[in-house]
Amino acid sequence: MAGKKSQVVVIGGGTGTFVVLSGLKSAASNAKNPLGLAITAIVTMMDSGGSTGRLRDQYGVLPPGDIRQALVALSDSDELWRKLFLYRFEEGDFRGHNFGNIFLAALERISGSFQKALYMAQEVLQTQGSVIPVTLKQANIVAHLTDGTVIHGERLIDEQDERAPIVRIALEENVEPNPEAAQKLLEADVIVVGPGDIYTSILPNFLFPEVATAYQNSHAHKIYIANLMNKKGQTDNYTLQQYIDAFKPYLGERPFDTIIINSTPVPHEQLTYYKEHGETPIINDISQPAHDMRIITGDLLSPNRPVISASDVARSMVRHDPHRLAKTLLQLIHV
Amino acid sequence: MAGKKSQVVVIGGGTGTFVVLSGLKSAASNAKNPLGLAITAIVTMMDSGGSTGRLRDQYGVLPPGDIRQALVALSDSDELWRKLFLYRFEEGDFRGHNFGNIFLAALERISGSFQKALYMAQEVLQTQGSVIPVTLKQANIVAHLTDGTVIHGERLIDEQDERAPIVRIALEENVEPNPEAAQKLLEADVIVVGPGDIYTSILPNFLFPEVATAYQNSHAHKIYIANLMNKKGQTDNYTLQQYIDAFKPYLGERPFDTIIINSTPVPHEQLTYYKEHGETPIINDISQPAHDMRIITGDLLSPNRPVISASDVARSMVRHDPHRLAKTLLQLIHV
Repeated sequence: MAGKKSQVVVIGGGTGTFVVLSGLKSAASNAKNPLGLAITAIVTMMDSGGSTGRLRDQYGVLPPGDIRQALVALSDSDELWRKLFLYRFEEGDFRGHNFGNIFLAALERISGSFQKALYMAQEVLQTQGSVIPVTLKQANIVAHLTDGTVIHGERLIDEQDERAPIVRIALEENVEPNPEAAQKLLEADVIVVGPGDIYTSILPNFLFPEVATAYQNSHAHKIYIANLMNKKGQTDNYTLQQYIDAFKPYLGERPFDTIIINSTPVPHEQLTYYKEHGETPIINDISQPAHDMRIITGDLLSPNRPVISASDVARSMVRHDPHRLAKTLLQLIHV
Repeated sequence: MAGKKSQVVVIGGGTGTFVVLSGLKSAASNAKNPLGLAITAIVTMMDSGGSTGRLRDQYGVLPPGDIRQALVALSDSDELWRKLFLYRFEEGDFRGHNFGNIFLAALERISGSFQKALYMAQEVLQTQGSVIPVTLKQANIVAHLTDGTVIHGERLIDEQDERAPIVRIALEENVEPNPEAAQKLLEADVIVVGPGDIYTSILPNFLFPEVATAYQNSHAHKIYIANLMNKKGQTDNYTLQQYIDAFKPYLGERPFDTIIINSTPVPHEQLTYYKEHGETPIINDISQPAHDMRIITGDLLSPNRPVISASDVARSMVRHDPHRLAKTLLQLIHV
């Protein structure tokens, strides 16, 4: 591949995508051994909860939260800028809002264009790579449950309720995708899917037929990074096979070439915490993958347990290690 | 002055200082005829009302509002950045807050330093000149009225109440000034005082003995720009002589070398509006200035009536014209 950069596309949203992008970006910009990687993040735009949901409701802007995380993951600017964009006000008028969300919302209001806001954020954060919103229209998802219930909007689907299992998700209304998303998938050498909540962060990207078709038609090496823990209300007690099966209605019978899954046991203390909240680790129940899919296992657990904010402890208990994940991915990318 | 830039220091806060700085900055960076001007703004830090007051109360930060206006006035960056810093949210969680205030508050919280926040804002706004907070400590003012009442805090002093006239203002507690403020005044070739509300924007800067002494000891040409309109509750029906007299307790018997006052009548429509709100134009009642002070009159009224925001109509009805003001000042600066 000398002379040509490998086009790596990471598709998802949220913290899982942040971890993958951070690891790849760090590896790609290692001064001693610069790699020929061009990184693109395709990011879900269906979040309707928390700070992002309030900004959508109150200011009519597109959801900034997942974009903000991807921008910061790829940022090459001073640490203070990255801290600023991730900074979450814990009290007062701005309680629960991240500065980066306020930045993107204000700029979209002033310029009338989410893309212009995104461009200025990329400039100030010196983003190495592209961040592509999967759509530039207001979009929402619905979840259909086995008992016939339909849940409207990402915020409610994301609530950790006791409820019937999810059968499928869909767009609430048909809206256009961002044509750049399909284009980048077609041009990719490698596509990394996940980790992340499949029904609220990963699969929403593939609800646009143009995006799902481009993914299926792409000649890229398609890699799925399995989550560490199941998500209550979304993927209760799912095994790895159930995750793979969940992708099939959207991406066909052979959604991936390679599946990466952590093999290190989650430490007892965190396991207890998660179990109390009805969440269990994902079991690798695939010994003979169908359709020549390959499974790679390894110690991918982060030794750190970063607490993003006081109000966000639960979400930050167990994480993939960005460097170990990147190392595993780079062996597959062969740069 | 060939080879050496004229050091111009503008001292005040609020919209008046914004207008003077904008005019001077525009003249100084005129590409066809670049002037040898080094502009410094010394800015009051006693605001306790509105967005700024809420940020002080809720986040314990230093007041960002006046600093934000000075930074934007001296900004050389894209118009979108300047618009962003001045952008005021009119509804929702951020109602009444300017983006620039949120930026400075978040950065001060993260870095623990108002100066670091100021430095980053100067960098992103490409500020031409320096913006010097008069203090880097939390400071508040009190106003003593003729009937013995004491009003605590800028917010309450700024309210347009019916009340006894102000005798004097003072610091609520003694705090250190920013040593750079006194230094810049001593080094100045020209010092421009005002326009602006004298008790809430201008005089608060001179309540620090070090600042007032540096001003008095400075060999700079000292210029006062008189306001266009009186301020209800602060300077009701003041004449120009009363304004000059109001400075004397803080700056001595000859506070200025030159006084600039607009001579064009305020248009009937605005005059009516102001009169309904108990505010009148300032009358020039000085025919023979004492102590060789010079008075310069001219048409300094802006033909525009910028409305900064829907909630801010009253404050934006009558303005000095930045270019006419700068032209008048430059004739005195002799660059």
